[in-house]
This record gives sequence, structure tokens and C-alpha cells, in this order.
Amino acid sequence: MMDRRIPTVRAVERGGLLATAFAAAASVLQAQPPARPAGQPPMQRITQVGPGPSNSLTDVPGLKVGNYQRSDNGYRSGTTVIRTEKGATAGYSQMGGAPGTKETDLLKPGGQVRGVQAIVLSGGSAFGLDAATGVMRWMEERNFGVPVMGGVVPIVPAAILMDLGRGGDFKKRPDADFGYKAADLATTDPVPSGRFGMGMGAGWGMGTASVKLSNGWTVAAIVGLNPAGSPLDMRTCLPYGHFLELDNEFNLVQPKPEECQQGVAGRGGPNDGSDNAPRNTTIALVATDAPLLDLEAERMAQIANAGLARSIRPIHGIGDGDTVFGMATTPPSSQLSNAELQAVFNAAADVLGRAVVHAAIQSKQVGNSRVGYCQQYPSACVKRSTGK
Amino acid sequence: MMDRRIPTVRAVERGGLLATAFAAAASVLQAQPPARPAGQPPMQRITQVGPGPSNSLTDVPGLKVGNYQRSDNGYRSGTTVIRTEKGATAGYSQMGGAPGTKETDLLKPGGQVRGVQAIVLSGGSAFGLDAATGVMRWMEERNFGVPVMGGVVPIVPAAILMDLGRGGDFKKRPDADFGYKAADLATTDPVPSGRFGMGMGAGWGMGTASVKLSNGWTVAAIVGLNPAGSPLDMRTCLPYGHFLELDNEFNLVQPKPEECQQGVAGRGGPNDGSDNAPRNTTIALVATDAPLLDLEAERMAQIANAGLARSIRPIHGIGDGDTVFGMATTPPSSQLSNAELQAVFNAAADVLGRAVVHAAIQSKQVGNSRVGYCQQYPSACVKRSTGK
Repeated sequence: MMDRRIPTVRAVERGGLLATAFAAAASVLQAQPPARPAGQPPMQRITQVGPGPSNSLTDVPGLKVGNYQRSDNGYRSGTTVIRTEKGATAGYSQMGGAPGTKETDLLKPGGQVRGVQAIVLSGGSAFGLDAATGVMRWMEERNFGVPVMGGVVPIVPAAILMDLGRGGDFKKRPDADFGYKAADLATTDPVPSGRFGMGMGAGWGMGTASVKLSNGWTVAAIVGLNPAGSPLDMRTCLPYGHFLELDNEFNLVQPKPEECQQGVAGRGGPNDGSDNAPRNTTIALVATDAPLLDLEAERMAQIANAGLARSIRPIHGIGDGDTVFGMATTPPSSQLSNAELQAVFNAAADVLGRAVVHAAIQSKQVGNSRVGYCQQYPSACVKRSTGK
Repeated sequence: MMDRRIPTVRAVERGGLLATAFAAAASVLQAQPPARPAGQPPMQRITQVGPGPSNSLTDVPGLKVGNYQRSDNGYRSGTTVIRTEKGATAGYSQMGGAPGTKETDLLKPGGQVRGVQAIVLSGGSAFGLDAATGVMRWMEERNFGVPVMGGVVPIVPAAILMDLGRGGDFKKRPDADFGYKAADLATTDPVPSGRFGMGMGAGWGMGTASVKLSNGWTVAAIVGLNPAGSPLDMRTCLPYGHFLELDNEFNLVQPKPEECQQGVAGRGGPNDGSDNAPRNTTIALVATDAPLLDLEAERMAQIANAGLARSIRPIHGIGDGDTVFGMATTPPSSQLSNAELQAVFNAAADVLGRAVVHAAIQSKQVGNSRVGYCQQYPSACVKRSTGK
């Protein structure tokens, strides 16, 4: 039986370096009602009921999301921060051939630290990893982090996508200031899909979605959509992930043949170069309030790659840095049944696929970026534009 | 720059234990025309031209495939052997939560052995791994293997799927004899999709497909389709992977609404239990004659999971042992360009997705197994049955 207590608490006991403040916070969290006792099967199959209230990442309790972006003075990039105040269990999966990441080794199960305070998803290629520095500063100022003698160490893993030069100036990219501002802007408000945060310079913007499970848990995703492949099936000019729709959330119809033909010849196909720069890497985060272990957060991230595969083709290219983080905001307080875990993992795959579709259809043209889906295929979006 | 010579040759130099016979075989292989010089980009984009001559795994030069299966006396299971005579570079990816594998640690890049003589895919759950024992015996009798002082050691990794008891007797399952017979039956003949080899006891049988690339390389796949999820999209009653079709190979039409409604209520949905046993695990192999490194064979197997995700939903369950092997039959003689590698990896994902569809639609009822797709949805198969 594995230790299912709050991430980083083991470090308190083992290292002897950590202050009691964090252990106290852990006690508060452990006072929450425990999940189902180990081994007891669920009463009935857990289903996906529908999107959460905002159909976005902040439907997961315990998460705040902040976006900071610029599209002036040679900039077209931005940073998204997902932060907690009590820490969250975390894991990750890295599949593409050209990743840019920070503090991911620490997420491998079995190490001292079992969770994070925040995760940063940013534009700016490898330079953009500096955004995490600003988030750490913001967190340190407020005493969020793993307590050690003399202060706290905020644990802030990060991943980036490649958007250098898209605003016209290769040197204008996210830095620590972007991260600090995004952390400061983070709230529990609904998160919009479109050209926000990491989506500002991404080929297809940023997307988010959520799903409520029948047992009360929520699973949600956010994605910066910048793949070498495409989210659009050019046989239909609809997103590959369209079949994952819940409750008419996409509200698309098959575009008229003349628009779709135009699409085949013009923008939108894989590797068509229309963005004047390689648009490589899809970075994402899936989160839940299910009380996962770090191992299970990792598996949730792994299986979420199926959502990327269903909504983007081809996927995980050599020039893609595809990285998915998994986060669980409830302390891992019990052994979940396989049926419960399976419901969370499958929901993570589906919700990430839906977030990709939201990015693709909500992304609008900014500066020299690709045109938005609904600008290119207005007949597909006719129901959306009438507010239906 | 990495050592791109034939697998296991480094061991000759390093271990000092290996006989010269294998090195001689390596020289023959190295006499083949080298691939493109390192760093030189391909002249044009590499495309998928269409299925190979047999649209099956044996379209890859250097491979022989043998199936042995039984459906009598309490048996309903079988074994598939993919074997070479000169060895092949290999790697693998394991994603599901309940794997059954043998000799996979040896496939991790960086070890002494860089390739295999054969790979076994079998029914029989963990017991079925014994099939590899029979393949090793067959190979040893013919002196196929890594030469060491006193003889050869055939390298034969294996993975299994769960079909125990489907023929009525839990104890009737593949053993070493199954493996020996399958190895003996292996030929370069076209491989049929349906209830053969590992597909005999699998929920949805066995499938195979191939694709020819515009630069002359072939990529092909074989799969034993036994997932906890389903290959059928129950909104349409067509296979999820239908959109991957090349050259009308599936030849399906949308089934009539009355048949599709019937499908929703009856068999065919995920976890519907109609097979009287958990049907868990999809095992597969993707192969090519591109001169991949072991690292690249591993990445090919990893990316091929995208094909499973596109054709099966949900995928990689906790009760699935999903495992994909990657095999390259040409010695790794040069550094390939990223464009060349990418073309192979993407083709591996697509061809594995197509193999899943072939399994789903070719699988027919045997004994107490699920009914075949075309038995359940005859109106979808009307063009197939007329031979068109």
C-alpha cells in the first residue's frame, strides 16, 4: 500500500529540514472527507456527465489560472500559469522529439518531492523557461512552497512551445516578468480559449475544456496548440476531435464544399508553412480533484496523449516537444479502485482532445498569425455566430 | 554520431564471445546500397503512396510471419511469430496497465543487444509467454541467434493478450509447442486478417496492413485486438479508424440506422461484457525496411500508439497490457534525416490504426466469440460482400 498523503509531506519526515508550517497545512487537507475505502468497487459505472460550469480548467477546485501575453513591439507570445496555494500531486509525460522543459525529473515517481505549487506553460522556446523564474519569485514573496530552513522553495515545473520571431522580433519573448505577471493575474475565473497566454504565439492558440464525472469528480485540460501536424481533417475541414463533443459545445456544421476545397489548397494542412515559422510543440496540462498518487498523475498524463492523437495528426513529431502534465488537487488519501482510476484517465484523454478542438476553433488572427478557423470556414461556424 | 551497424555486431567487438559467422552475415548486409548520406535533406516530401502488394506485414522485406491457433478441445487461442533470418533492429513501447512481456528490458537502447531474431505475439495471458520458448528452440535448431561460445542464443521478445478460458477450458492455452509450430509455419506469404494466430481468442481477432512510402520504404503493422475499449464508434457503427483508409481498402458504407441502433443496445460497445470474459490488451508490431537505429525503432513503436488511440477508445486501460514492438529489417547504416524518420514514424501510426480496422471488420465468429462486424452490420459491408 502506497503512501497517499499530501505531496512533499514525506519530505518533512525524511529530510528533517522542512518547517512544520507545511505539515500543518497538510493536516488541514487531510481533514477532508476520505475517498472510498481501498478495494471497495464503485456502486455503478462512472460516466462523463457533461462539461463543468465553465468548461475550462478552473472547474477543478484548487486551481487558479493566469495568462499574460503581448502582441506589441515585436512580441507575439505569452505565458500561462496554473497555480495552487496548497500544492498538488503531479506527474508528466513527454513524447515529442524536441522538448523544452524544466523541473520534470523531479516529477518522476519515487523521489522526495511528490507535488508542485505551480506549472508554467509558455511560448518562447527554451528561453521561455525563464517564465518559471518569475513564478517562483511571486510564490516566494507569498511564502508558497516547500518549507526549508530559512524559507520556502516553490516547485514550478515548466514546458514551452516554439513561437520565436512570430511577432517580428526574435528577441522579444517571455521572460521572468511574464511569469510573475501571469501568476499575479491567476484567478479561479473561467478560462477563455483563444489567443491568451501560451496561445498568443501558438499556431492554433490555446484551448481548455472540462468534464464532470458522475461520481462528482472533475477532470479538465488546457493546451497550447502549436503542432507540426494539424487539428483539422482536411477531408471534412472539421477538427479531427469533433467526435469528442459534449453537449454541442463546438456547435459546428460541415462547411460548404467551396470553402472546404479552398482549405485544401490553402492554409490549414499539416506542415503547410503558412505561419512563416515552424509551429512545433503541443504543451498541455490535465487536472482533476480525484485524490491521485503521483504515479497515477503520471499515468493520467500518459493516457492523455491519446486525446492529442485523436485530435491532432500527425502527432509527436521529431520537431514537436509534446509534453503533458498531470495534476491532482486533492491529497492522495486512499487507494482508488481501478474503475475510478480508469474513469479519470479516460476522461483526461477525452477532455484534452476537446481542449484541442476549442483551441482550433476559438483561435483568431493576431498580427501575422494564421487566420482563425471561423474566418477560414465561416459556413462551419454559422450556428456559433448566431449564438445558438 | 551513433553506431549504425547491424544489431548485435557491437557485441562481437566488445564481448569477444561472439563467433565470426554473425559478423560475416553482417558484412553481407552492409554490402547493401547505403541510405542517403548523413545530413542531406530528401529531395521532396515523403508521402504515403498506398498499401503494399499484400497490404500485410510481410510486405516488409526480411520478415516471415507464422500463425498457429486452435479452436478445438477447449482451446480458442493462438500464437503469431514474426521472425527474421538475419536479425532486425528493435525497440518497444508499453502503455497499458497490465502488461505481460518477456525480454523487453533487453530492447532498451544502450544495451549490448540491439536487435532480435524474432518477436512473439500470443494469446494465453502470462502463460502464453512460453510460446517464445518454442520459437527459441526452433531457432536454435537452425543456428539462428547471437553466436556465443558453444552455440547461439536466439533473442525472442514476446508479449501476450488475455484470452484465457474463451475456448471453455482455462488450462488450454499457447505453450512452447504453439511457438515452435508458428515459427515453422512462418513464410513471406501475405498475412490474412481475421481469426489467426494471436487473433483466435482475441475479442476482435488479428489485423494487418502495410503502406509504401514514396521513397521506396515500406512500413507495416500487425495487431491482436483485444482492448477493454472498442474499435467501433457507436454513433456511426463504423470503426473509429475508418478515416485512415487508403485506396478503399475497408470498403464500408454507413450501416442502416436500424442495424446501428441495434448495435447500441447489443454487442459492440466498450466493456459490454458480451464476450463472457475481460478482453484486455492490444499487442502489436510495426516494422519497416528503413535503416533505423534501435533508438529510432523504439520511437517508431512509441508514436505508433497514436494509431491505437485513433482506432480504439478508450485505450491503454489499467487492465490493458498494450505493448507495441518496432522492428527495422535493414541494418542501421547511416544517419537518416528528420524528414525521413518522421515519414516512417507517422506511417507507423497510420498503418497500425489501419491494421486495427482490418482486424475489426475481418474478425468472424468462432465458437463462443463475439460475432463478426459484417455479421452484425451487414449493410455496412454490402460493397465488401459483392467483391467490389
